[in-house]
Amino acid sequence: MQFASDNWAGASEPVMEALLRHNGGFVPAYGSGDLCEAIEKRFQDIFETECAAFVVATGTAANALGLSTATGPGGTVFCHKEAHIRVDECGAPEFLSSGARMWGLDGNLGKITPDAILRGLKEVPHGVVHHGQPSAISLSQATEYGTAYSVSEIADLASCAHANHLKVHMDGARFANAMLAIDATPAEMTWKAGVDILSFGATKNGAWCAEAVVFFNPADASDFIYRRKRAGHLFSKMRFVAAQFEGYFEKDHWLDNARHSNKMASRLVAGLEASPIARPAWPSQSNEVFAIIKKTSAEKAKHKGAIFHDWPSTGLAPEDRPADDEELFRLVCSFATRPQDVDAFLQAIND
Amino acid sequence: MQFASDNWAGASEPVMEALLRHNGGFVPAYGSGDLCEAIEKRFQDIFETECAAFVVATGTAANALGLSTATGPGGTVFCHKEAHIRVDECGAPEFLSSGARMWGLDGNLGKITPDAILRGLKEVPHGVVHHGQPSAISLSQATEYGTAYSVSEIADLASCAHANHLKVHMDGARFANAMLAIDATPAEMTWKAGVDILSFGATKNGAWCAEAVVFFNPADASDFIYRRKRAGHLFSKMRFVAAQFEGYFEKDHWLDNARHSNKMASRLVAGLEASPIARPAWPSQSNEVFAIIKKTSAEKAKHKGAIFHDWPSTGLAPEDRPADDEELFRLVCSFATRPQDVDAFLQAIND
Amino acid sequence: MQFASDNWAGASEPVMEALLRHNGGFVPAYGSGDLCEAIEKRFQDIFETECAAFVVATGTAANALGLSTATGPGGTVFCHKEAHIRVDECGAPEFLSSGARMWGLDGNLGKITPDAILRGLKEVPHGVVHHGQPSAISLSQATEYGTAYSVSEIADLASCAHANHLKVHMDGARFANAMLAIDATPAEMTWKAGVDILSFGATKNGAWCAEAVVFFNPADASDFIYRRKRAGHLFSKMRFVAAQFEGYFEKDHWLDNARHSNKMASRLVAGLEASPIARPAWPSQSNEVFAIIKKTSAEKAKHKGAIFHDWPSTGLAPEDRPADDEELFRLVCSFATRPQDVDAFLQAIND
Amino acid sequence: MQFASDNWAGASEPVMEALLRHNGGFVPAYGSGDLCEAIEKRFQDIFETECAAFVVATGTAANALGLSTATGPGGTVFCHKEAHIRVDECGAPEFLSSGARMWGLDGNLGKITPDAILRGLKEVPHGVVHHGQPSAISLSQATEYGTAYSVSEIADLASCAHANHLKVHMDGARFANAMLAIDATPAEMTWKAGVDILSFGATKNGAWCAEAVVFFNPADASDFIYRRKRAGHLFSKMRFVAAQFEGYFEKDHWLDNARHSNKMASRLVAGLEASPIARPAWPSQSNEVFAIIKKTSAEKAKHKGAIFHDWPSTGLAPEDRPADDEELFRLVCSFATRPQDVDAFLQAIND
Repeated sequence: MQFASDNWAGASEPVMEALLRHNGGFVPAYGSGDLCEAIEKRFQDIFETECAAFVVATGTAANALGLSTATGPGGTVFCHKEAHIRVDECGAPEFLSSGARMWGLDGNLGKITPDAILRGLKEVPHGVVHHGQPSAISLSQATEYGTAYSVSEIADLASCAHANHLKVHMDGARFANAMLAIDATPAEMTWKAGVDILSFGATKNGAWCAEAVVFFNPADASDFIYRRKRAGHLFSKMRFVAAQFEGYFEKDHWLDNARHSNKMASRLVAGLEASPIARPAWPSQSNEVFAIIKKTSAEKAKHKGAIFHDWPSTGLAPEDRPADDEELFRLVCSFATRPQDVDAFLQAIND
Repeated sequence: MQFASDNWAGASEPVMEALLRHNGGFVPAYGSGDLCEAIEKRFQDIFETECAAFVVATGTAANALGLSTATGPGGTVFCHKEAHIRVDECGAPEFLSSGARMWGLDGNLGKITPDAILRGLKEVPHGVVHHGQPSAISLSQATEYGTAYSVSEIADLASCAHANHLKVHMDGARFANAMLAIDATPAEMTWKAGVDILSFGATKNGAWCAEAVVFFNPADASDFIYRRKRAGHLFSKMRFVAAQFEGYFEKDHWLDNARHSNKMASRLVAGLEASPIARPAWPSQSNEVFAIIKKTSAEKAKHKGAIFHDWPSTGLAPEDRPADDEELFRLVCSFATRPQDVDAFLQAIND
Repeated sequence: MQFASDNWAGASEPVMEALLRHNGGFVPAYGSGDLCEAIEKRFQDIFETECAAFVVATGTAANALGLSTATGPGGTVFCHKEAHIRVDECGAPEFLSSGARMWGLDGNLGKITPDAILRGLKEVPHGVVHHGQPSAISLSQATEYGTAYSVSEIADLASCAHANHLKVHMDGARFANAMLAIDATPAEMTWKAGVDILSFGATKNGAWCAEAVVFFNPADASDFIYRRKRAGHLFSKMRFVAAQFEGYFEKDHWLDNARHSNKMASRLVAGLEASPIARPAWPSQSNEVFAIIKKTSAEKAKHKGAIFHDWPSTGLAPEDRPADDEELFRLVCSFATRPQDVDAFLQAIND
Repeated sequence: MQFASDNWAGASEPVMEALLRHNGGFVPAYGSGDLCEAIEKRFQDIFETECAAFVVATGTAANALGLSTATGPGGTVFCHKEAHIRVDECGAPEFLSSGARMWGLDGNLGKITPDAILRGLKEVPHGVVHHGQPSAISLSQATEYGTAYSVSEIADLASCAHANHLKVHMDGARFANAMLAIDATPAEMTWKAGVDILSFGATKNGAWCAEAVVFFNPADASDFIYRRKRAGHLFSKMRFVAAQFEGYFEKDHWLDNARHSNKMASRLVAGLEASPIARPAWPSQSNEVFAIIKKTSAEKAKHKGAIFHDWPSTGLAPEDRPADDEELFRLVCSFATRPQDVDAFLQAIND
C-alpha cells in the first residue's frame, strides 16, 4: 500500500535488462557511443521531427537547464504558482539560469491560462528594464494537481506565449501519463501545439534516472552541451542513461507503464467515489489522485501500513475544502502498483 | 586493445548485481531509505571517522560542489595548472561556486608543492580585496600525470595550506588507484594527512556513476544538501547510486578493481621499458601510463585496433620530450583491461 | 509641477558643496582615506551602535548585496509581493545572491505582517530540501505604498522572523521620510526593533548616488568587502560617495530634506482632500502620495506640464478602486519640490 | 610627491563644473534625459561610428559586464596573465559572467601576441565540451606595464582572434594615455583595428566615476541594459555620470589631461635616466613609470613624503631584474601631478 510517490519504485524490468545488456565492453565516454546516438534518433522518431534531445539524470536538471536557454539577464518565466519549478526545486531554475525569476500565476487545478499570462505580462512587461525580461512560460503536463492540459489548451497557451515573444516550456515529469490521459501523440502534445522546450521524464515511469531536454527548434540548443557540462550534468558512462531509454522505449514499454499507473489511479478513484468516508477532491487525469478522507479513517489506513502524504488544501475553493474531520491527501500510483494494493488501501480506509 | 580511458568500461559485476538486488520494492525517495543511510555509515567505517558523505553522480559535480563550500566571494583555489578542475570541467567549479577562480600552479609531473602554494599566495594574498580571497588548495590523487602524492607530501601540502587558512580539497577521481600505489589506508591518505574535503570517485573504477563528496569536518557541510539540490544533483531514486556503492565496497571489490588496473598498467610499463621503439615518459604510479612511442609504430597499433590518445608534451622538460619521429601518448587501464589486451598492444607497436 | 519621482531631482546644495570641498588633493583610493573612515564612524553615531556600514552607489546594489549575505543555497526572502526587490530590480537580488528567491506575501497597503510570514513559512518551511532555505524577511520603509511601519510593527515582524531563524532586512530607500513620519530615531526604527541589515538610502533624498549597507551585527559582514568588489561596486575614488554623505548628514541636512518633502506631500494631500474631483487613495505617511483623480482632470494637468505616473489599482479593495472615469496616480515630492509646484498642480486638476 | 595611483586624484575642474551646471532642475531618471542621450551621441562622434555606449561607474563593472556579453556557458577569455581582469577584480569577470574563465597568457611587457592566443587555443580549443568555449581575447590599453599596443599590433591580435571566432575586448582604463602614446585616433585604436567591445575609462583621467562600455557592433549589446540593471549598475540620477562625460569631452579636456600625465611621466623617465641610483625598468609609454631604484634611496624618498608602490619584478627577464640593493617600483602620474612634484621626487631619491 505504497502511494507516497511514483519515485519510490525502482526501475522496471525492461529498463534493467537494457542496462544489463549494455554493461559489457568498452564504449566511448561522454555520450559519443553508438547507443547514445541511437537514442537521440529514437527521440526524433517518437516526436516525428528533427528535434535535439539531450540526456540528463534528474528532472530538476532537465527543467533548470532547459529553462536557462530561454532566459537572458533579468529573465522571467511565467508558471503556475504551485509549479514544481517554483516551489520544489530549491531554487535550481533560478541558480542555473543565473537569476531568472519563476513568476507564479493563479490557476484552477494546477493549470495556467492565456489570461493569467496576460496578467503576468502586465506585472512584468516587455521593455521595462526594472521589471526584467519576460522570457518563457512553463506548463506542467501532467500538472501538480494530477490534471492534464488538452491539446487545444496547450495550443492556446503557446499561441498566447508566442504572440508575446515568450518561449514555451513543458515540464513533462509525468509526460506519458498525461499523454495517455488526453489520448494524444507525443508530437501533438508538444511541438504541433507550440511547445519549444520539453523536459521529458522517464524516471517516475520506470527508469532509474533518465530524463531528456528536447528542443523542437534545435537552434535553441546551440550551447546546451556547455550548459550541461558546466553544471556537472554530463556523465562519463553516459550509456547507462541511454540504455535506460532503450529499455524504456522498447516495444512501447513506456506507454504500458503509464497506462498501468493511470489505470491503478482510476481504480482508486472509482473506489473513492464508492466510499462513504472518502471522495476524490477533483477529477484526476493521470496517476496522481487527490482524495479527501475522514481523518480517523486515514489514520487507520496508515496504521495498517498505507503510505501517502497530506496535501495543502489551499488550492481548493472554500466550498470544496475538507470538513473539519477530513483532510486532503495525495496518492500516487506507479508502474509497480498492483490492483490488490489499491483494493487493500480502499478496504483499509473503509473498514 | 582499449586504452582510451577507464571510463570507457561499464560497471563491474558486483556493482551490477547490487543494482539488481536493490531494484525491487518501494524505497523512500531522495536518499531517505535505509540503504542510503547505510552507505553513509560505510564511508565512516572505511575512513575510520565521523565524516559526512554525500552521494552525487558525476566527478564534476563532486569537485565543483565540494569546492563551492570552501570558496566565498572572490574565492581562489590553488591547484596544478593542468588540474582537471581547471582545464577539463568547462568552468563547472567557477559556475557552481559563483565565480571562484582556479589558480594554476606549476609543478613537476602533475604535483603541486608547498613552495608553489606560497608563490600563489604572493599573487593572491589574504586581505587584498582586489585579489580576492585565497580559499583552498586542490590536489588530484592520482594526479593528471598518473603519479601519486605520498602521505608525507599530502601532509606537507595540508600543513602549508592550513597555516595559511586554506582548506584542503582532494580530487580523488582515481582514489583507489592512488591509495594502492602508495600503500596507504583511506584515513592515512586523507584526514590524517590533513585533507578536509574529498571527491571520492568510484565511476572510473567500476561503478556506473557513483561519486561522493566526503567532508572530514562535518560542519563544513552544513548547507551541502541545499547546494546539491540547487544544482540539480539530488536524485529521486537515490538508491541506485547507493546500491552501486554497496557493490563497490563489498568484500573489498573496489580494491580488487584498482589493484587489477594498476597491475595492468605495470605490465604495460614493463613492456614499454623492454620495447626498442617506445618508453614510459615518466614513472607511472597508477592505472595511467604515459608513453613516448615512435609515430609509425603508434599508427600501426591504431590500425590494428588499439585505441589511445595523443597527449601534449608541454609538461615535460625539453630534454625529456619526444624526438621528431616520436609522440607522447596516454594509455589508461581499467578493471576490464585484460593481460592479453596489454600484450596485444605491446606486440602491435613492436611489430 | 514635477511629481514623477524623487530621483528626478539632482543633488541638494550641501551635498554638492561637500563634493566640491573634497575635490582637491590626493586621497588613497578604494575607501582607505580619512573621509571614508569618518563616514563609517558617522553611521555609528547616527545609529548609536557599533554597526558596520559599507558605501555603495545604487539602491539596487545595496538591497541585493545586503540580502546576499543572508541567503545561502536555495535561500528564500519573504517580502511584500509588490516589494521593489521582487518587482523592480530586474532580478538583481536573485542574480547577486546566486539564485535566492524573493517570496511575495500579500499585505494591506504595502505592509507584510507576522501572519503573512508564518503563511510563507508553510510554503517554504525549514528543513525541506526541495523548498530551499527560508533565510530572511525584507520590509520596505517607507513602503511601496508610501505608508510607514510603526516601531512596534517592525518589532513584531522582527520578533516573528527571529523566532523562525530569519534575518531582518530593511529596504530604506526612503528611510528618512519614514523615520520622520513615525517620529522615531534611527536606532529605534532599526536595530532596537530587531533590524539586522539596512539598505540606507540617501539618493532619493538629496544625494547623487549614495547608499549604504548597514550591518547591525558586524559579524554578518565578514566577507562583504569581497561581495561588493566582486559585483563591481567598489569605487576607486570612493571619497566622492563619502563626501556626499558628509554633506548629507551635516547639520541634520538629511532630516531637513525629508521633512520638506514629507511636508510637500501633506500639502498635496490636504489639497486633494479639499478637491471636488480628486482624493487621496489611502493615507500617505511619507513623500509619496497616491491619488484617485478624474481622468479628464488628470489629462488637463498633464497638458499644463504636470508630470506624474499612472499606478495599478490592483492593490486596492474593489470598493476603494477608481470609478470608470477616474484613475489612480502616484505623486512623489522631493527636497526640490516647492509649495507653489504643489499649488499649481492642485489648481491644474481643479480648474 | 604622490605617485601611488592616478585614482588618488579627485575630479578635474571641467568635470566638476559640468556636474555643478547640471545639478539644478528635474531630469528623467535612469538615463532617459537629454543629457544622457547627448552623451551616447558624443561617443558616436568621437569614435566616428554608430557604436552603442553604456555608462557605468566603475572600471570593474565595465570590464566584467562587457565581457559577459561575449562569454556563454563555459566561456573562456584569453588575456595577459597579469591582466587587471584576471588578477585585480576579485573575480568580478567570473562572477558577472556566471563562471567564465580568464585564461592567462604569457607575454613580454604586459602584451599578448597572436602566437600566445594560438597557444591558448591549443589548451582551450573550440568544440571540446570539457575545455569550455573559447570566447574572447582581452587586451589592456595601456597595459599593466605602462606600455601601449601599436595600431598594427592591435590589428594583428584582432585578426587572429576573429579568424578563431573570438571577440576582441579592450580594457581601456587608461585609454586616453595609450591613444596619445601611439598617436592614434579613437577609431583607429579600436574598431578600425578590430576591437569589438571597449571599456572606456575616464575615472583615472579626471572624472569621479565615469566609465562606458562601448559596443562597435551594437547587436552585441541587445540585452546589455538588463545586464547592467541586474548587476545593480543602473543609476537613478544617471545625469551625474553623463555630466562628468560632458565635462570630460568638452574642448578636448580629456586629451589635455592625458597629455599632461604622459608628459609628467616622460619628465620622470628623463630624470630616472639621468639618475646615478635609479633607472627606468623598461620604456614607459603612458602615465605609468616602472623604476628600479636603490632601496636606501627609495626609503629616503618615502621618508620625505613620496608615495609610491613596490612592484613584483617577476615579469622581468632575470638579467633585467633589480640587483640585491635595488627594488622595482611603480610611479603613476595623473592630471593633477605637477612638474615640481616630479622634480621633488627625483631630488629626493638622488640626494
